[in-house]
Amino acid sequence: MPGTPEPRLRAWAYLSRVVEGPSWPLNELIRLIGPEEAARAIRAGDLPPALDRPTRARRDIDVSAEDLATVHKLGGRLVTPDDEDWPHFRFLACRHETARNDSECAPPVVLWALGDHRIADITGFAYAIVGTRAPSSYGEHITSEIAFELSQRGSTVISGAAYGVDGCAHRAAIGADGTTVAVLAGGIDCPYPSGHTRLIADIARSGMVLSEYPPGTRPARFRFLARNRLVAALSDAVVITEAGARSGARNTAKWARIYHKPVVAMPGPVTSAASVGCNQMIRTGEATLVTSASEIITTTGAGARTTCPSVQEQADSRCTDGLSAEQLRIFDALPLRGANSVTGISADVGVSEDAARRALTMLELHGHATQDERGWRRRRNSSSQAGLG
Amino acid sequence: MPGTPEPRLRAWAYLSRVVEGPSWPLNELIRLIGPEEAARAIRAGDLPPALDRPTRARRDIDVSAEDLATVHKLGGRLVTPDDEDWPHFRFLACRHETARNDSECAPPVVLWALGDHRIADITGFAYAIVGTRAPSSYGEHITSEIAFELSQRGSTVISGAAYGVDGCAHRAAIGADGTTVAVLAGGIDCPYPSGHTRLIADIARSGMVLSEYPPGTRPARFRFLARNRLVAALSDAVVITEAGARSGARNTAKWARIYHKPVVAMPGPVTSAASVGCNQMIRTGEATLVTSASEIITTTGAGARTTCPSVQEQADSRCTDGLSAEQLRIFDALPLRGANSVTGISADVGVSEDAARRALTMLELHGHATQDERGWRRRRNSSSQAGLG
Repeated sequence: MPGTPEPRLRAWAYLSRVVEGPSWPLNELIRLIGPEEAARAIRAGDLPPALDRPTRARRDIDVSAEDLATVHKLGGRLVTPDDEDWPHFRFLACRHETARNDSECAPPVVLWALGDHRIADITGFAYAIVGTRAPSSYGEHITSEIAFELSQRGSTVISGAAYGVDGCAHRAAIGADGTTVAVLAGGIDCPYPSGHTRLIADIARSGMVLSEYPPGTRPARFRFLARNRLVAALSDAVVITEAGARSGARNTAKWARIYHKPVVAMPGPVTSAASVGCNQMIRTGEATLVTSASEIITTTGAGARTTCPSVQEQADSRCTDGLSAEQLRIFDALPLRGANSVTGISADVGVSEDAARRALTMLELHGHATQDERGWRRRRNSSSQAGLG
Repeated sequence: MPGTPEPRLRAWAYLSRVVEGPSWPLNELIRLIGPEEAARAIRAGDLPPALDRPTRARRDIDVSAEDLATVHKLGGRLVTPDDEDWPHFRFLACRHETARNDSECAPPVVLWALGDHRIADITGFAYAIVGTRAPSSYGEHITSEIAFELSQRGSTVISGAAYGVDGCAHRAAIGADGTTVAVLAGGIDCPYPSGHTRLIADIARSGMVLSEYPPGTRPARFRFLARNRLVAALSDAVVITEAGARSGARNTAKWARIYHKPVVAMPGPVTSAASVGCNQMIRTGEATLVTSASEIITTTGAGARTTCPSVQEQADSRCTDGLSAEQLRIFDALPLRGANSVTGISADVGVSEDAARRALTMLELHGHATQDERGWRRRRNSSSQAGLG
């Protein structure tokens, strides 16, 4: 996006700064009247109380042009719900199953991004790998092994660029020539922790660095928690390799449950403080015990990119090529495990039940969807079963 | 039992040698016509086909007097279903839920015993601790810790006297001045492995050494498997501290499931071959992950002896003192977890439904039993909740 940014993009940039963190009311306003009209209403203070108060402090600050310029200079871009690869569906479970006024779990307004990928491409088969900031040598070893192997199998490794497990996971993914995504708790121009400045630059080069916060935003405790929600939402499953009793990984796992993503954890010695969190989550059923990349794939059902034959054959094509935009949205909204009803799917995607039924029939004909007495789900490619385990 | 053994005891001793291993048909015959008449029928070959064939090879061997003398000389005794502390109820789940003709899970005909305890006393709060014969130092450490702590809390530690985890568990129990039971796969006069001769003698001195096989019987592979069933049946729960992929502990866990005893396992590093079995059993749900003695107790619901107040106060009394024999049998048959119907309980214990209902009402009045919509179960003492965790 060179030159002067278009007004609509500036509106998105303005909106990403005017409210702190996730906000269902803001998302709703934008959905109803569009980003430009929403920006105008906020500037004018012409708002319902749910939005008037949270926007009062910043409504007069419009540095959208500067923000866009800053990110452009870094080689990045602003990804918005207008973009075809906006990861709508990754937040759907939450949208329909938790209270709408619990803004904590709202989708981001926008994503500020570094890296030359479409978000949809790199989150197709993505694992969050998270854990303690102070791993044991065992934790470093298994994190690196798992991240390396999942990367080699074509999956994206998503983490938070923190010290410890996060860093091990990103580094191993890069070492495997894989794709890795760092989701930051501050602006993408503010690498954090500073000791990982070079690592974050490496991630941006081969993968992606994402943040819902505009440039210049410093990380803060509540932003780390909001960031964990993005890590969980953008992933197909969360893998906790080593976590102590009070690890932030537990927070990421909480988000995974809200977004209906499977959570798996690797056990460790009962004598190791660094494994207390993992063992406890397995014990309570919050996470399923896994011991290898194969087990992670079979347990989570999230698959690996190489299980999509057309991807194996041709890097730029996807096995869902040829689907209409509506079919693709419905495909994206289909659960990999469990099932969803036509009514549920039409509500999730925002199309009529008739349209959903027509699209599902086409998806079934093309082998992308299947149904049983419980409803519809995404069909895993038969080769995905054969290639793994 | 000094002097000449009574004919009934000799009949039991004869019966324990005439069939190899567990046998429902033999148990049934004894139940129907008593041990002396059963011995006579076998000697005479006056038998249904199910018993005629298996007893043919040994029916003429009667060394019962010698067997009883051998065990008497060792300071041991023969425990039979005639004894009030015969652990009937520990086999009940199997009796009613698996095919009756699957003799593998039948109760033993008798138990040959060394050690000055009543079986009922030492199996009231008993944990089987089993695992690999070749533990890592981690496995040795956690086995010893767990066995020591469970012993200190008044529980009995039951194992198989094998090298590795079994030996660690017995030794730690002895070290804690606790009670430990070794169940052998051969005669109690044939300590096995021979390197554990002294350990087995120590176990007999402070705890008990049990076997369903008459004196002189050498261990064999099928006897180890039958022995594992006794370890599981005599315990309230099975704890697997460290087990490789093909550990016999898995066999003990199978028996625990058949006898409806909880199975718990301690996780280990995914990089350790010695923990593959434990991790896998946790992963598949065959065992619940535990990391400490407290967690074992809360997870299995098997409690610890010190949780029974009257035992704390007075070593010789039990909290079920004052119950009638029938009430006690029904109490013993009640599940600690889950529930059983009046019909099920009356079938298990062999009393009419009316009698079972009356006894259950009394047990409920005295705080020993409780019911919900699923049926009846044993009531855990309220103090057992407070004292643990």
